Amino acid sequence: MRSHYCGAIDEALIDQEITLCGWVNRRRDHGGVIFIDLRDRAGVAQVVFDPDLPEVFMTAERVRNEYVLQVRGRVRRRPAGTENADLPTGQVEVLGLSLEILNAAETPPFQLDEDDVGEETRLRYRYIDLRRPQMQRRLQLRARITRELRHYLDEHGFLDIETPMLTKATPEGARDYLVPSRTHPGSFFALPQSPQLFKQLLMMSGMDRYYQIVRCFRDEDLRADRQPEFTQLDMETSFLDENGVMELAEGMIRELFARTLEVALPNPFPRMTYAEAMYRFGSDKPDLRIPLEFVDVTELMREVEFKVFSGPANDPEGRVVVLRLPAGGELSRKEIDDYTAFVARYGARGLAWIKINDIHAGREGLQSPILKFMPDTVVVELLDRSGAQTGDLLFFGADKARIVNDALGALRVRLGHDRGLAERGWRPLWVVDFPMFEYDEKEQRWVSLHHPFTAPSVDRPEQLGDQPGELLSRAYDMVLNGTEIGGGSVRIHQSAMQSAVFELLGIGAGEAQEKFGFLLDALKYGCPPHAGIAFGLDRLVMLMTGSASIRDVMAFPKTQTAACPLTDAPAAVSERQLRELNLRIRRQE
Amino acid sequence: MRSHYCGAIDEALIDQEITLCGWVNRRRDHGGVIFIDLRDRAGVAQVVFDPDLPEVFMTAERVRNEYVLQVRGRVRRRPAGTENADLPTGQVEVLGLSLEILNAAETPPFQLDEDDVGEETRLRYRYIDLRRPQMQRRLQLRARITRELRHYLDEHGFLDIETPMLTKATPEGARDYLVPSRTHPGSFFALPQSPQLFKQLLMMSGMDRYYQIVRCFRDEDLRADRQPEFTQLDMETSFLDENGVMELAEGMIRELFARTLEVALPNPFPRMTYAEAMYRFGSDKPDLRIPLEFVDVTELMREVEFKVFSGPANDPEGRVVVLRLPAGGELSRKEIDDYTAFVARYGARGLAWIKINDIHAGREGLQSPILKFMPDTVVVELLDRSGAQTGDLLFFGADKARIVNDALGALRVRLGHDRGLAERGWRPLWVVDFPMFEYDEKEQRWVSLHHPFTAPSVDRPEQLGDQPGELLSRAYDMVLNGTEIGGGSVRIHQSAMQSAVFELLGIGAGEAQEKFGFLLDALKYGCPPHAGIAFGLDRLVMLMTGSASIRDVMAFPKTQTAACPLTDAPAAVSERQLRELNLRIRRQE
Repeated sequence: MRSHYCGAIDEALIDQEITLCGWVNRRRDHGGVIFIDLRDRAGVAQVVFDPDLPEVFMTAERVRNEYVLQVRGRVRRRPAGTENADLPTGQVEVLGLSLEILNAAETPPFQLDEDDVGEETRLRYRYIDLRRPQMQRRLQLRARITRELRHYLDEHGFLDIETPMLTKATPEGARDYLVPSRTHPGSFFALPQSPQLFKQLLMMSGMDRYYQIVRCFRDEDLRADRQPEFTQLDMETSFLDENGVMELAEGMIRELFARTLEVALPNPFPRMTYAEAMYRFGSDKPDLRIPLEFVDVTELMREVEFKVFSGPANDPEGRVVVLRLPAGGELSRKEIDDYTAFVARYGARGLAWIKINDIHAGREGLQSPILKFMPDTVVVELLDRSGAQTGDLLFFGADKARIVNDALGALRVRLGHDRGLAERGWRPLWVVDFPMFEYDEKEQRWVSLHHPFTAPSVDRPEQLGDQPGELLSRAYDMVLNGTEIGGGSVRIHQSAMQSAVFELLGIGAGEAQEKFGFLLDALKYGCPPHAGIAFGLDRLVMLMTGSASIRDVMAFPKTQTAACPLTDAPAAVSERQLRELNLRIRRQE
Repeated sequence: MRSHYCGAIDEALIDQEITLCGWVNRRRDHGGVIFIDLRDRAGVAQVVFDPDLPEVFMTAERVRNEYVLQVRGRVRRRPAGTENADLPTGQVEVLGLSLEILNAAETPPFQLDEDDVGEETRLRYRYIDLRRPQMQRRLQLRARITRELRHYLDEHGFLDIETPMLTKATPEGARDYLVPSRTHPGSFFALPQSPQLFKQLLMMSGMDRYYQIVRCFRDEDLRADRQPEFTQLDMETSFLDENGVMELAEGMIRELFARTLEVALPNPFPRMTYAEAMYRFGSDKPDLRIPLEFVDVTELMREVEFKVFSGPANDPEGRVVVLRLPAGGELSRKEIDDYTAFVARYGARGLAWIKINDIHAGREGLQSPILKFMPDTVVVELLDRSGAQTGDLLFFGADKARIVNDALGALRVRLGHDRGLAERGWRPLWVVDFPMFEYDEKEQRWVSLHHPFTAPSVDRPEQLGDQPGELLSRAYDMVLNGTEIGGGSVRIHQSAMQSAVFELLGIGAGEAQEKFGFLLDALKYGCPPHAGIAFGLDRLVMLMTGSASIRDVMAFPKTQTAACPLTDAPAAVSERQLRELNLRIRRQE
């Protein structure tokens, strides 16, 4: 029905007759002539209808925005002075020789170039929203990205293998989406949170290298930028250790960026231990584009009179840090108050600061409500260690380490962006040597920082010891510009170690057998050493397209209440369907 | 951890030191030496352990089947006379210089080369079953097939776009799997039976060309070779008609067969109307490898005395056909009885036959219980039209056309295989010009033969007429060796036509708005003409790997009762989970 995409016509086609199909982006009547910008996924072409061809012209007069047209016409150079340098097709136009209206369109609920359309409306009329060139580019780049990822993995001997969607509930994860079974009354499948156990079983099956771009599901409350269904690039390999997997995975991301964005990422990616990342940036996913860094002054503050500092400094779980903001002396009182409110969201009870008005003027050159509590020696040491310069401002965090890290870590990123300090470009990083467990205060037990199938850094169960908090795991996260885009680990491949780890997690032998019996069995029948990683594809595409939300890189995302305004899902079902599934709706109390 | 795959060593490596990792396929002790066949996904290598290296030898002595080993050794030529021509690695062996047991294995529940392992056991220990070279090859070919399909579609401008898994119930399809919503109490998502409406919405979104290899779900009783979840290659394109889509789709399948199986499929694929397929083969997916064909003798039988024939011949819904089996005179009475029982499964009340003992001997040369009911002219005509030869046998079908087609169509295929008449090789075919509707006796209404979004062969709603049974659709099925591997159609792209088709299906305006309102709306805002097709990937891979069941080309299939013996899914869930979902299990009555 067409010879060319609208967005693909150029001077090489001048004097040729072509056929285009597309949507009316805009119609203008000017000087007795009708101009139609015809749009398809490749771009926009200007078509001109002249009253010299009255029948065609009359059809063109009926045309409105978003009508679908087929146009046959001759390509010609635009008259001098009317070229549009912003458009790839801007040197030429098409003189319309025939015109067929393939479909009419009612006035759309919003114009494609409208800026302030609410998200609910955009999602309800997603088929119009997706016509916007920006959305087209995002989904096109997404398709390109998955293609490049697959290409790399295919070339490296990974087999694309599908794992089940109707599977068993995950006892150690987030909340599952459940699917009632009709043939097994009272029983439920769960939709997978990840294919973790299946990919491990594929390693035990001798598949050697596996990957899958796969839908995963989590029925969580959608704070932040989460979706009930999201997509992972999931991979696993046998007979490789953490270094092998990290090399393969960063090679893939490097090739992806080179081929799609023409960006050269470092080779190799830098690596940082979890401990160092927390110490220097208060985060296990530090944004290295931001040149600010914590200076730990816990020891220095042990003896000061100021209880706000000496308390945490003497608490084994506390820490005191300084964050130096170059030229931060410019901050107004109001701005400092705003940052104080900002860190309060992370649990910080205040935000102490010192302005350096003149670094050479001793105490006289400093300005701060807290200065009076600190002896000279401490002040001198503080200025020295933080590298303070005239005009800088020092922020302080002093509390439980967790709160200091969260609050000042977030402040660091915010200041970096607010003050224009963040580098442009891409700063990937591996974070390694994670703790194996963390203590869950609410559940009063140790839980896995990654998942219970992650191998510890020791080889034998008897080396696990009785200090779970001290153990390191063989996990690794890939961080890009402050976002975790991938995480993985070497897995436990021996039944005895897996049982020991379950025990440390408070999962007794009976419960382990009931919930993970098939895994414990499988480990006994010849399981190879194996390791893998999974990438959050939506988040990766979001970063690479410069989008603000993962919803902008999904064709049909859900709202924050996990609903689809387009199809009105979820919806009520019939009594007959419920009866077939052996279910009753519980009356609301 | 390894330098080579076990299956990849050959004479080029002689005298080199290599490292292998893999599973013990077999251990033999012979002449004081230990032979281990080490297996990985690429194949098997023979490793020899000599008592000259006592430490390594002693480790080798501990090894049992399915142990996971790492072996360093030197490649050498096998002694003359001990080569194994059946193995690609059969000219060489590896002298083991060091050996590490990476993991032990208990005695597996079955040996990999055991033939008669029940399917339940194979599925329960799927990770062992999948180690079998045959299963490895199937999943490897499956990965290769998806890769080639993607490659073709990428090259042809199709965008890989993901559509939701948590979506709205399909009112006009098979039974949906439902997913209760926690945040919308009493409401349910449905898992998609296909992304049909979403791919149409993507066309309305201007994506132009879409594809996806996507999981689909149907909660049906698993007769035949069905699975609750299966995989489709789904595609859709704007501004192309049926010929455009068929060309693209058959080009894809042709390229796939050429690249993976080195098979040249015909170009173009033959096409046959639905009417012709039913007339000649009694099936809308005829297996063209089988050279048998119906001869319709309905008219000829109108006047015979034999009511079994004249009844159906005079019934407007009846038909009488002959199926000539060359050399069928050899069939024993017992064999004919078996075939009579076989057609009875399809509703046939008998299976009349005539043996041609001597074609030149008139009635004397024929043998049949029904001969006496037919006048000479009819017999002569019958022999002539069916092309009967001495030694042949004629089978008759006479009943409602539906029963004759089903029964004799199935008999045709069965005879073809039983009698070794089927050609080897691949016989693809397009079936076109399907009826738009068929009458559902149970529901007492017209239903869509494809689906309600299929375009009719007429352009305007007022041309639909009042004989729904006469209307043809713009649908097309791709058939390969008697299996439907793909089906698609031009879609309705105008709201008025879609409403008219809903009305013919007995879906009133109110119900249509409630169930398909978003589609009817979307059709009004600039919908391009579009068409597409979906392929059953599992079935295609099954055919291409020569497997007997789609379960053999899935890593983790379900049983016939939709359960997974490996993970024991589906399973009971906790009262807390049910409460969160606002559900109660209905007590069994």
